[in-house]
Amino acid sequence: MGALRLPSLSLLRPTFSPLRRLPPLSVGRATTHSLAKEAEAVTAGDGKASVSPSQQENSVTPRSVDFSAWYLDVIANAELADYGPVRGTMVIRPYGYAIWEAIQDYLNVKFKETGHSNMYFPQFIPYSFIEKEASHVEGFSPELAVVTIGGGKELEEKLVVRPTSETIVNHMFTQWIHSYRDLPLMVNQWANVTRWEMRTKPFVRTLEFLWQEGHTAHATFEEAEKEALQMINIYKDFAYEQAAIPVITGRKSKVETFAGATCTYTIEAMMGDKRALQAGTSHNLGQNFSRAFGTQFMDENGHRQHVWQTSWAISTRFVGGIIMTHGDDTGLMLPPRIAPIQVVIVPIWKKSDERTSVLEAVATVHNILKEVGIRVKVDDSEQRTPGWKYNFWEMKGVPLRIEIGPRDVTNKSVVVSRRDVPGKPGKEFGVSMEASTLVNHVKIRLEEIQAVLLQRAISFRDSNIVDVNSYGELKEAIAEGKWARGPWSASDAEELRVKEETSATIRCFPFEQPEGEKKCFMTGKPAEEVAIFAKSY
Amino acid sequence: MGALRLPSLSLLRPTFSPLRRLPPLSVGRATTHSLAKEAEAVTAGDGKASVSPSQQENSVTPRSVDFSAWYLDVIANAELADYGPVRGTMVIRPYGYAIWEAIQDYLNVKFKETGHSNMYFPQFIPYSFIEKEASHVEGFSPELAVVTIGGGKELEEKLVVRPTSETIVNHMFTQWIHSYRDLPLMVNQWANVTRWEMRTKPFVRTLEFLWQEGHTAHATFEEAEKEALQMINIYKDFAYEQAAIPVITGRKSKVETFAGATCTYTIEAMMGDKRALQAGTSHNLGQNFSRAFGTQFMDENGHRQHVWQTSWAISTRFVGGIIMTHGDDTGLMLPPRIAPIQVVIVPIWKKSDERTSVLEAVATVHNILKEVGIRVKVDDSEQRTPGWKYNFWEMKGVPLRIEIGPRDVTNKSVVVSRRDVPGKPGKEFGVSMEASTLVNHVKIRLEEIQAVLLQRAISFRDSNIVDVNSYGELKEAIAEGKWARGPWSASDAEELRVKEETSATIRCFPFEQPEGEKKCFMTGKPAEEVAIFAKSY
Repeated sequence: MGALRLPSLSLLRPTFSPLRRLPPLSVGRATTHSLAKEAEAVTAGDGKASVSPSQQENSVTPRSVDFSAWYLDVIANAELADYGPVRGTMVIRPYGYAIWEAIQDYLNVKFKETGHSNMYFPQFIPYSFIEKEASHVEGFSPELAVVTIGGGKELEEKLVVRPTSETIVNHMFTQWIHSYRDLPLMVNQWANVTRWEMRTKPFVRTLEFLWQEGHTAHATFEEAEKEALQMINIYKDFAYEQAAIPVITGRKSKVETFAGATCTYTIEAMMGDKRALQAGTSHNLGQNFSRAFGTQFMDENGHRQHVWQTSWAISTRFVGGIIMTHGDDTGLMLPPRIAPIQVVIVPIWKKSDERTSVLEAVATVHNILKEVGIRVKVDDSEQRTPGWKYNFWEMKGVPLRIEIGPRDVTNKSVVVSRRDVPGKPGKEFGVSMEASTLVNHVKIRLEEIQAVLLQRAISFRDSNIVDVNSYGELKEAIAEGKWARGPWSASDAEELRVKEETSATIRCFPFEQPEGEKKCFMTGKPAEEVAIFAKSY
Repeated sequence: MGALRLPSLSLLRPTFSPLRRLPPLSVGRATTHSLAKEAEAVTAGDGKASVSPSQQENSVTPRSVDFSAWYLDVIANAELADYGPVRGTMVIRPYGYAIWEAIQDYLNVKFKETGHSNMYFPQFIPYSFIEKEASHVEGFSPELAVVTIGGGKELEEKLVVRPTSETIVNHMFTQWIHSYRDLPLMVNQWANVTRWEMRTKPFVRTLEFLWQEGHTAHATFEEAEKEALQMINIYKDFAYEQAAIPVITGRKSKVETFAGATCTYTIEAMMGDKRALQAGTSHNLGQNFSRAFGTQFMDENGHRQHVWQTSWAISTRFVGGIIMTHGDDTGLMLPPRIAPIQVVIVPIWKKSDERTSVLEAVATVHNILKEVGIRVKVDDSEQRTPGWKYNFWEMKGVPLRIEIGPRDVTNKSVVVSRRDVPGKPGKEFGVSMEASTLVNHVKIRLEEIQAVLLQRAISFRDSNIVDVNSYGELKEAIAEGKWARGPWSASDAEELRVKEETSATIRCFPFEQPEGEKKCFMTGKPAEEVAIFAKSY
């Protein structure tokens, strides 16, 4: 075993300890879960063994105790992801991947509606390409994975495993673009990318991740600018409407701009620990890459010009954003619109003569909901108690649970429990099984949950952004873990000093700006905009 | 420029020559096309310039003259793919990628219906993993791409860029599978894979390609066998029903079995040049990988057993199969069910006062067809003549073309042209514009074309398979470029001798076997099955 590989899950200690020696993916409780499974496998010959509630309790570190441990526990227990064998890599498990598919399904439609075509560029890029755009090579060269051997032989030119595709895209665009009639050229690819990150965290920062990267070429700066803004707005709409994440949209500072872009737009999300997560970016690349790669077109007057470009991306990091925005001590909490399972049905019976009628009712309800397109699952496994199942599906963040027992069958009704409202207050008894009543009820509840999650996140965000008018106030806000918003027109050097002294960076100059005259809180000089500072992932 | 990179497209000579110095993707005419575009850009200030028919004629090498050149010309001219900058890599352009998306859309639904979940495994695999399964390392080690540098440092353990994922899948399965209750475990991933191939050909064999790879683990051999057969049948159904490719389904010989499998099932397709294309495979892996990686489960009696596994894959190679099955001298010909564009509408007018009424009718027809889910596109660009557009969309293989001119507007009718029936016989005049009549007409024609393409391919296939009863007859059939089918029970050594002497290999032992006693055509000994021999891609 080289230093590259982490110990396999089963080697990790099975009990929780606040002192975690292994920084990434804590799987203390996941291991307990697995061990419990094995114990069960041994004793379950009688078909009755089940994990006792005590084994399942506290399977997640409380968020308030250790947010990072909580995050890793949720990922393990909700079966979202696991370590890959190579340091910093991640296996995205089916439930985590289904969330990514929900993100893809929504965005893919939006990209096509706005005139983009999917395509695919090779992932191996000649090393020399990376060096062509000066700031690009500076930004990316420290984190490259390099192929030096192919087919058993040392390669003449080393190959970079794409960290992003601007260089190879421009190499191809140069061959496809001749006249203004070939513009705009608007493409997107869903792909894996590799960045040799030192500090990794599942979903948030992994050595390899999945994303989409859009690449466009235009005849004018204005068109490119319009496109870059259009795409950041598509991301923003997705975040608000689907993921219930109230991101703040804005422009990056020069220091934080993408390596090779003239301007980067961003959506910044506040996680449950108040750290900022850069959840999607859209770059106006200007003519930086077209000049480096000679991507030119003949304009309507017969003059050769360099194209104006954009690129924009959202990645599996967004899944991490969903976990850290909505999750609680019970586990994941998924907004209904992107939940792979919106409703889980749990049958309850004790005597075997109750079993048939309960399961019949369960099947009926399942079909009623499935028919109208609600994503519904029945958990009728007989190895687990209903209580175990409640905990399990709450851990998985399923928005609604329907419980059906013998009394419900008699009353032709069901019990509906909301994930977002714990305990009794979240339960509704006696909801009619009649198809249209039930469907209507479930649909309304799902929409309510969607709205509640967004509203909660907005309140949380707004109560944790502090308007500051001095560097002292900023320091205080950041020390409290909050975001600081204040007028800024100071230098790059001063921005870096803030980072050094407080660990906070400018997340963005938000599009929504307060009215009136502003003075830079650092220099006292006039400022055109407020900036938002925060510690970030 | 290292030896890795091919000259860029624009450096290739612009005129067709039967003596091609560059074996891969011939783009002679594509370059003409691009040059024509530039010429046009210079002169088109008056908005009237158009490419003359002569520039467009013969833009594809006739299939009968040089099948390989024809294939490359079609790929270039139909804008399906282009070279990547690294030798043997391919850029899949939007139109080619849309065909791949049609393949994905169909299969993804089938995979989920049969109980598989999508997920994602990292592409970097520790080198030591590849060495764990003996025949696997023997099969794959010559074609590996290896990452030796990460983050600027030499890595302690080299990383393989996945050529396939059985090893890393088993590494993870070993951690997830404990009891028989964890089985079956059935997953799939859509991913890129890398194999350092020496002789490459766009879509058919590229250094990097896209595929799906399914991986399953079961409690018994029988279950794994059932799964492997189920998946090859899903591929077969896709080939027949969607791609109109009448594949032959069967079992690979031991010599041709996947490195690490106990049995490989395959679908074999006959290309237009009568070569065989292995278009999809499904492997019963037995316990080969589970023994190498210690993937065990506790059975119902409390005994530890190794799991039984399958894997199965279909790749972007299939797009090459579609091109080479249905294409003709006019270009690509797409089966309607997987065509990204099923109907193209071309407006025709001469005087500008005709323009408005024609374009109005075109918009109406477009909406009528779009509304019922037909994939329809209007080509109303004013830089091209209708004749140019006919050729262009025929090259792209669009199954139906609707032409609308001033007389059609007056008559409230359209002209419908079939891609699969050239010239006048393929044209229907006076098809009513009335919505339900038109929709009905188009739907029936699309289904007819789908059926005709399949029927043609079946006839072609069946007229080119020869039943042989001696090695001499086999040699003769193969020399004629045909497939030979004959009883076979000879040794691996004799199979390799056939390959050496005729270049033909056993494509499969087909599931459909003739009745009656058989004697091996090579040895005269009893044979249980006939095998199909052919030259292949």
